[in-house]
Amino acid sequence: MNEPLKIGLLGHGTVGGAFDELVADRAESIESATGRKAEISGVLTTSIGNFEEILAGADVIVELMGGTDTAREHVLAALAAGKPVITANKQLLAQHGAELFDAAERAGVQLRFEAAIAAVVPVVRVVQESFGSVEFTKISGIVNGTTNFILSEMASTGASYEDTLIRAQELGYAEADPTDDVNGADAAAKMAILARLAFHTPVTLDQVDFEGIESVQPDDLAYAKELGLSLKLLGVAERLPEGITVRVFPCFLYQGHPLSPIEGPYNAVTVEAPEITEVTMSGPGAGGVQTAAAVLGDLVSIVTGDAPTNSAHRDLPVLTDVTSSFYLHLEVADEPGVLATVAKLLSDSGISVKSVVQKGIGDDARLVMVVHQCPESRFKQAVDQIASLDALRSGPRFIRVIEEEFVV
Amino acid sequence: MNEPLKIGLLGHGTVGGAFDELVADRAESIESATGRKAEISGVLTTSIGNFEEILAGADVIVELMGGTDTAREHVLAALAAGKPVITANKQLLAQHGAELFDAAERAGVQLRFEAAIAAVVPVVRVVQESFGSVEFTKISGIVNGTTNFILSEMASTGASYEDTLIRAQELGYAEADPTDDVNGADAAAKMAILARLAFHTPVTLDQVDFEGIESVQPDDLAYAKELGLSLKLLGVAERLPEGITVRVFPCFLYQGHPLSPIEGPYNAVTVEAPEITEVTMSGPGAGGVQTAAAVLGDLVSIVTGDAPTNSAHRDLPVLTDVTSSFYLHLEVADEPGVLATVAKLLSDSGISVKSVVQKGIGDDARLVMVVHQCPESRFKQAVDQIASLDALRSGPRFIRVIEEEFVV
Repeated sequence: MNEPLKIGLLGHGTVGGAFDELVADRAESIESATGRKAEISGVLTTSIGNFEEILAGADVIVELMGGTDTAREHVLAALAAGKPVITANKQLLAQHGAELFDAAERAGVQLRFEAAIAAVVPVVRVVQESFGSVEFTKISGIVNGTTNFILSEMASTGASYEDTLIRAQELGYAEADPTDDVNGADAAAKMAILARLAFHTPVTLDQVDFEGIESVQPDDLAYAKELGLSLKLLGVAERLPEGITVRVFPCFLYQGHPLSPIEGPYNAVTVEAPEITEVTMSGPGAGGVQTAAAVLGDLVSIVTGDAPTNSAHRDLPVLTDVTSSFYLHLEVADEPGVLATVAKLLSDSGISVKSVVQKGIGDDARLVMVVHQCPESRFKQAVDQIASLDALRSGPRFIRVIEEEFVV
Repeated sequence: MNEPLKIGLLGHGTVGGAFDELVADRAESIESATGRKAEISGVLTTSIGNFEEILAGADVIVELMGGTDTAREHVLAALAAGKPVITANKQLLAQHGAELFDAAERAGVQLRFEAAIAAVVPVVRVVQESFGSVEFTKISGIVNGTTNFILSEMASTGASYEDTLIRAQELGYAEADPTDDVNGADAAAKMAILARLAFHTPVTLDQVDFEGIESVQPDDLAYAKELGLSLKLLGVAERLPEGITVRVFPCFLYQGHPLSPIEGPYNAVTVEAPEITEVTMSGPGAGGVQTAAAVLGDLVSIVTGDAPTNSAHRDLPVLTDVTSSFYLHLEVADEPGVLATVAKLLSDSGISVKSVVQKGIGDDARLVMVVHQCPESRFKQAVDQIASLDALRSGPRFIRVIEEEFVV
């Protein structure tokens, strides 16, 4: 008869409550998978529980309280006491990952965090364990369900960003304060963690360039539909000859891209390397019970095996200027020479136009162009020059484009 | 300085050769992930090597020789000697899994086999480890790349099955003797293994009902395209109140099903359970280097952790008659009363018609119907009766239909 597995649970909100229930509901399965009965031996919330007592009485600490101050202290204390820790706290890992991973390695105990990236979509395990010795070239992810829901809805209804955000809030897919989701900061934190795992290089939050979806217009979605493209908020971590880049941005994906069919409040991540070609994982990216299920998977693994270490034994430079292909949307006065002027500005910057569509709208014209791959800095300089043209009726908008590159 | 990890490699064909190269190419990554240098300490082929010597000199045995007789003996001998084993041999596991898993458990050593199901798509690990305590309700998979390539090509080109098979052979996506791929037997073996893992119940090959794609007609694909459906060879393992079912069959999937966008020689598996909703993994389903990459993932895991046991501690009945929705294709004489007769036969069997399309083709008519869920045995009885009608111009064809059921 094995000893029961005593779980100290920090936090009892949506995910914490769901985890508590799941441990009870799946008691038989957990025992069959681990050989031990699991029980919640203590719960810490702002109103109940004493952390030191809970730590002393637990075999493993599950941190679902959120925040980065108290959570950090408790996780460090647990690791120092030789207790394995599971956390779903992406901000904690993105801001203090290096310190926490070091502490876990020094103490020789496991720190697991599957739920921090894409809830129940098993990205962390697959990157670290299935592909533990793979030299990744690229990780692309839809790692924020709120923004994917909003973009999917905008594409299917034609509604504005503002109206769709309200609808997402009503349906529970967006929080009352959606800032960190819609501006890309949440996805940036997740991509920083993923990039560390994939490239074994420390990545701090301020090294991740991110943009959100707040300025996406129904026009852009309509254009995408016409061309068979889909618009996603994508996180991309890429290994280049000179270093790595980690970025988050809205972008158009060609039909056939493995992330193109991902609709609604879902998450999906595609990992690429020569020896695996590409592997994609997808599923619900949030939800209390789904996140709790990911935590439970980590719990079972803590009992049955060792975790890989999360050491960043490399120190590849994190680059800021990369090349991209862009969609550029301009509203201009419908007068002779405007297209020629814009085209010359781009050409003078060495930017090559792939396609252009011009449509009249009253006295103005809408000019939509797709340009070939070019350094982003150079493109943005050219856009700044275009923005200063007298003929321009509103600020230029641009969105990155990911063209066909996968060979299926 | 840790001891090197000595690998005894059985088999040096496409996958074995690719694995050999990959171990050399990824030497640094393997050492960084495991703390040990990996080396191939011995290779067994039909012409070189002595198994006993290789076994004695190895820390782990990698079985990539194929076949089920010698492979079984060698794997059993390795496990009995306390050496962990990695195999990519689905037939070995489907036919002798119970014996091999028992032997591994008795010896207390790991038997890993990620590459046996979907090559580099990490289905085994996700089912066993990420979701080690999940009570699965359903596993659906495109687990044969050859047939998925053929069906994708038929859909996009309109070519016949026979011509497309030849093209698949020319491109290396189908073997010279494609029988086990195209008749569903290969997928059936993989689904038997997956069902065991998911439901902890032994499943023998003869308990898996399977059908292949040999009788799929361009007509069927054209019909699917019209309705926005895609046609896939699907493996389905399902937990029902009375037991489980494991089946392989071509079927129509509604647009929006997570397996619907999987095109070409790819594999994909969707796992479902209340606490995870649905999670889908996809990627290349074959290829020497991709399969070798999955084997290498198992190798790293063998060093860094324990494997879950594969014990089948339940014994759920494996059911044979289940309910399905069907597409039924009839070519009939274009004369009054035929539709009425067919409709009455179905109705007398308690089978409800969802939609019907009738089109003239010369003196004959094509009658395409979709019927609602009904017990398969009852549907097949009704089809037998329809087949005996004088008005029928050729044998009736039917294909299962999976209708919208996922809530995204």
